[in-house]
Amino acid sequence: MTRHGVYFPDVILAVGEALTVTGEEAHHAVRVKRVEVGDDLRVHDGRGAVARARIEEVAKARGSWEVRARIAEVTRAPEPRLTVFAAAPKGDRLDAMIDGLSQVGAGSWRPLLAARIAVEPGGGRIARLDRIAAESMKQCGRAWLLRIGPPATLDGALAGPGPVVLAEASGAPFAGGPVLALLIGPEGGWEPAELARARAAGAALASFGPHTMRTETAAVVAAAALVSAGA
Amino acid sequence: MTRHGVYFPDVILAVGEALTVTGEEAHHAVRVKRVEVGDDLRVHDGRGAVARARIEEVAKARGSWEVRARIAEVTRAPEPRLTVFAAAPKGDRLDAMIDGLSQVGAGSWRPLLAARIAVEPGGGRIARLDRIAAESMKQCGRAWLLRIGPPATLDGALAGPGPVVLAEASGAPFAGGPVLALLIGPEGGWEPAELARARAAGAALASFGPHTMRTETAAVVAAAALVSAGA
Repeated sequence: MTRHGVYFPDVILAVGEALTVTGEEAHHAVRVKRVEVGDDLRVHDGRGAVARARIEEVAKARGSWEVRARIAEVTRAPEPRLTVFAAAPKGDRLDAMIDGLSQVGAGSWRPLLAARIAVEPGGGRIARLDRIAAESMKQCGRAWLLRIGPPATLDGALAGPGPVVLAEASGAPFAGGPVLALLIGPEGGWEPAELARARAAGAALASFGPHTMRTETAAVVAAAALVSAGA
Repeated sequence: MTRHGVYFPDVILAVGEALTVTGEEAHHAVRVKRVEVGDDLRVHDGRGAVARARIEEVAKARGSWEVRARIAEVTRAPEPRLTVFAAAPKGDRLDAMIDGLSQVGAGSWRPLLAARIAVEPGGGRIARLDRIAAESMKQCGRAWLLRIGPPATLDGALAGPGPVVLAEASGAPFAGGPVLALLIGPEGGWEPAELARARAAGAALASFGPHTMRTETAAVVAAAALVSAGA
């Protein structure tokens, strides 16, 4: 996974096709990553396809770098299915959570709106998170862009596809099995009425460690455990 | 775990003893956390004991806040035994790694000096990490301060207490069992000669996720998996 990764969201990746990296991505590849003719690029479409492309030309055109490559191989990966519902932590911690969820192989994140949650990310914040997810995808080599989904309430999350697991200190250690939805409580903890509604909806409670974790740590650690267990 | 936590590293915690919180910690407890007479404090000695102390007085003395409390209960936890050897990532990512390792229940972190590692933390950095570990201990409720140990080479880590696990993408998924040392490779990956030395020393290789993780994500996710498995 040492090949340099680029993101081409609007291209259908097919063996033999040529593609040209331009703009900031080309500048970064040439001046920072120092790619050269003959090197391979890793090209992500963010929708399940990753291509290996051989660099055929590195050139300046009208003052800007361009990297021309030809696709030698395309592999496809199944879509990751785990949705993580978690409150949006403040500041850089949300960015770190998105990066971490991407690295551990979650499918999507949706902001969880619960009784004790303070922050709901706005539109500008969401666009920033999409950029973080794209950078993370290239860095960690995943084939699917982590999706940033719309906010959901607890009841909305419980009504969606399951099995559903709530991360909760009082639950038993997670015992494995497929999970489609992981719900991370706010740092003040789930309220008793919320836990009762979750149990009534058939969700399982599971603990993922011995201590109280910050939202972003709990989300990434629990998602990693679920993905490793086959979620 | 909603009680406010304070750190008293130099006190032997015993039921019936009085203690006085002063300085910045008292200011924070009174002005930010708004503790009051009758509330409980959670008092950590960082060496395995956590006390519940009832606040008996909140007062200003010579212009500074003081919180006087009496210990009502002391619980002791066994020392966490997992040492995580990982390269020091740059900047805030090292801070996040220390906070995360503390939250998931690792025992100590030691900077791993390997062939491709760029940064070795200096003395000022180490003192800062001790402060982060102390804050994290109070936040997550653990009884032992995460220890920041001296740097180690790969061979030094392999010669220490085991079982030893190397996080390595080519390894089989981690299968459980006790582990005393977790080694996280640099983001460029382990070199073939390093993997050969690790295998020769009896270390196991294990993968902890489907993608290439950043050092701090890999360290926290893998440590969480090992702690959950009984490390």
